[in-house]
Amino acid sequence: MPAHDIRMSGFRTRSTVEEAWGWLDVMLAKVEIRNETVPINQAYGRSLAEPVLSEIDVPGFDRSAMDGYAVIADETTGASDYQPIRLRIVGESMPGKAWNGTLQPKQAVRIMTGAPIPDGANAVVPVEYTQAERDDVSVSTTVGPFKHIGRTGEDIQSGAVVVEPGRLLRPQDIAVIASIGTPTVTVRCQPKVRVIITGNELVKPGQKKRPHQIYEANSSLLLGAIPRDGGIVESINFVEDTERAIEDALLIPDVDVILISGGSSVGAEDFAPLLIERHGELPIHGIAMRPSSPTGLGQVGAALVVLLPGNPVSCLCAYDFFAGRAIRQLAGRSTDWPFRQVTVTLEKKIVSAIGRVDYCRVAVKNEKSAIPLAISGASILSSTTRADGFVIVTSESEGLPEGSVVTAILYG
Amino acid sequence: MPAHDIRMSGFRTRSTVEEAWGWLDVMLAKVEIRNETVPINQAYGRSLAEPVLSEIDVPGFDRSAMDGYAVIADETTGASDYQPIRLRIVGESMPGKAWNGTLQPKQAVRIMTGAPIPDGANAVVPVEYTQAERDDVSVSTTVGPFKHIGRTGEDIQSGAVVVEPGRLLRPQDIAVIASIGTPTVTVRCQPKVRVIITGNELVKPGQKKRPHQIYEANSSLLLGAIPRDGGIVESINFVEDTERAIEDALLIPDVDVILISGGSSVGAEDFAPLLIERHGELPIHGIAMRPSSPTGLGQVGAALVVLLPGNPVSCLCAYDFFAGRAIRQLAGRSTDWPFRQVTVTLEKKIVSAIGRVDYCRVAVKNEKSAIPLAISGASILSSTTRADGFVIVTSESEGLPEGSVVTAILYG
Repeated sequence: MPAHDIRMSGFRTRSTVEEAWGWLDVMLAKVEIRNETVPINQAYGRSLAEPVLSEIDVPGFDRSAMDGYAVIADETTGASDYQPIRLRIVGESMPGKAWNGTLQPKQAVRIMTGAPIPDGANAVVPVEYTQAERDDVSVSTTVGPFKHIGRTGEDIQSGAVVVEPGRLLRPQDIAVIASIGTPTVTVRCQPKVRVIITGNELVKPGQKKRPHQIYEANSSLLLGAIPRDGGIVESINFVEDTERAIEDALLIPDVDVILISGGSSVGAEDFAPLLIERHGELPIHGIAMRPSSPTGLGQVGAALVVLLPGNPVSCLCAYDFFAGRAIRQLAGRSTDWPFRQVTVTLEKKIVSAIGRVDYCRVAVKNEKSAIPLAISGASILSSTTRADGFVIVTSESEGLPEGSVVTAILYG
Repeated sequence: MPAHDIRMSGFRTRSTVEEAWGWLDVMLAKVEIRNETVPINQAYGRSLAEPVLSEIDVPGFDRSAMDGYAVIADETTGASDYQPIRLRIVGESMPGKAWNGTLQPKQAVRIMTGAPIPDGANAVVPVEYTQAERDDVSVSTTVGPFKHIGRTGEDIQSGAVVVEPGRLLRPQDIAVIASIGTPTVTVRCQPKVRVIITGNELVKPGQKKRPHQIYEANSSLLLGAIPRDGGIVESINFVEDTERAIEDALLIPDVDVILISGGSSVGAEDFAPLLIERHGELPIHGIAMRPSSPTGLGQVGAALVVLLPGNPVSCLCAYDFFAGRAIRQLAGRSTDWPFRQVTVTLEKKIVSAIGRVDYCRVAVKNEKSAIPLAISGASILSSTTRADGFVIVTSESEGLPEGSVVTAILYG
């Protein structure tokens, strides 16, 4: 074995979580930002890259805010149930189909919500305060000037910015963009993520397994988490634990992030770390955290490479701490946890160690108290499905006593 | 006009929001629950319909939790940096490739994380505490029995329920299901939602519009909101404001929910309410709320029909209050708001009226204070994109004074 080969000799030093995040931030800051223009109805959840400006006024004309009758406001002064005023119905204004005359005194135009206000009219009486009889209508309320009229440009003025860059586009944002007639938007490209799953012992769910084989679970974790964080799964590659197979999957170009599950540690068949160093760099390998200390962060070509431990709980933790964070950042999202946080009281202590970050799954009751799950067993995957979230014990802490008030980060 | 025709005569009475929810709950309780079995990797976010049971133990064998050496625990007693013990390396156990001998005294087997513990061994010494030299290894720490061994079934026992029905499947839930070898799950069917957009004045974004036309925005709102709430958009139908066109789109069978945007009120061209009464029932039409009072809830055949006001802000509000709630319920989700709630202080008063629910968009600063937006104008669509969320003023309240501490429901 060459001198620099850490296989079967253990991690010499471990980076801190903060050092790993620091390296990620520097690396990701150098990545060229790419945008693309897409039809608005394909832009839900995407990060807006350029401001959306309106070229029109909304509304584009004075319009009725109610179904009723367009009138001259002054003429309704004093009208009431006991003293209705009577007007002659001279026409009808429908949405998209204006009445083209000019309203004269003692006249009214039947009007629908959204329809143009006729020339000469300056208020709308809602239908509830009217009684039509053949060509006449009685009005039983007083309306002031511009009552129930949506004025030209009152919603959006021509030239205004309607949505600012950085916004993760919500359904109502897309609706506003549609309402100004804009059919496309420029958004941040979604990072393309290649998943490489290694492990000769792995069998796919639904297949027959031999005694010492295990079912492969990490691809199912990553296939769900990557799109949630704004990435696109470029491909999932199940490869043999051979240098050649891993190298081949690693070196295909045109991808933003490569996640390698398994073979990330210092075992005899852990080829991935050596391959990354050979073709790029692996400045972070071994992180002072539990679980997922055998995590690695590096770079091959322009692609960020994250070595995820094969153990599914460690894989989840390393994904959440590093890979998911990087994917969100590349997608133009916040690096914050994509989960809701609540303040809870610990019902049982959590034991940790100074110098190490702990990712402790917890069951949360009524958003008030939290019970740590499977504190000892990093490999207890079922704890993640019993868990409602997790508590992070920082590296400055030896643990959290029972009764501590802590922040729980809630999955899902 | 027939006597029961409410067009151009106003809503006689309005239902309360609670009455509308009550009718929805009764109607939806009668809908037959349908489930389907899908591959696990297509089940993210779906509501689990049947418990997932494990037919296997996980792990299926005693396995190493570390890279290192499998040993007889008792033999390491007293071992330290100053007093290492020396063992003969007699083989190697790799994941999926066991060492088939039986460990004898003074022997060790090189072992990797996840590999089977050889017969005779009962502990693992992590590689960090060892020094290999040709066929021998020095061990410089003491390990107790079963140290660094994951015991058979310690994660999941055969026969155990790993995920309970009702769970909205998260990536880690799917990973757990994969880890027990299960390739499919039975989940609640997603409700199929037909969208019918009416309005002769509407033009699609990107097209040229004439002066009194407006750009169509509600389909963009609904296309984003329906999948978020667990529904599938069956089709979007842009139809003319004619009785025939709306009737045709309404009567195509095989859909769970029909949303009709526009023509929901009491205007002369509001055909949809009459058509729903003709072909089914429309028990709720007109709701005491602002905006979106011209909302209707009814049924045609087995399908729930929601009449959404054409005004985009009213459409958003009616969707959030009624349609989205129903879609979530049909998808096996909670009827609660799908949004995060925060407690905030109002920086300005909100005026409402007793007997009416108000849906007031607010801008939220630092999750601490909220400023009501566009209180007067229900039709101000741009307020929804400036808004971070909304505050609900209940029907018992005349409004909320400046400085009130209220719950804001945050979009997105």
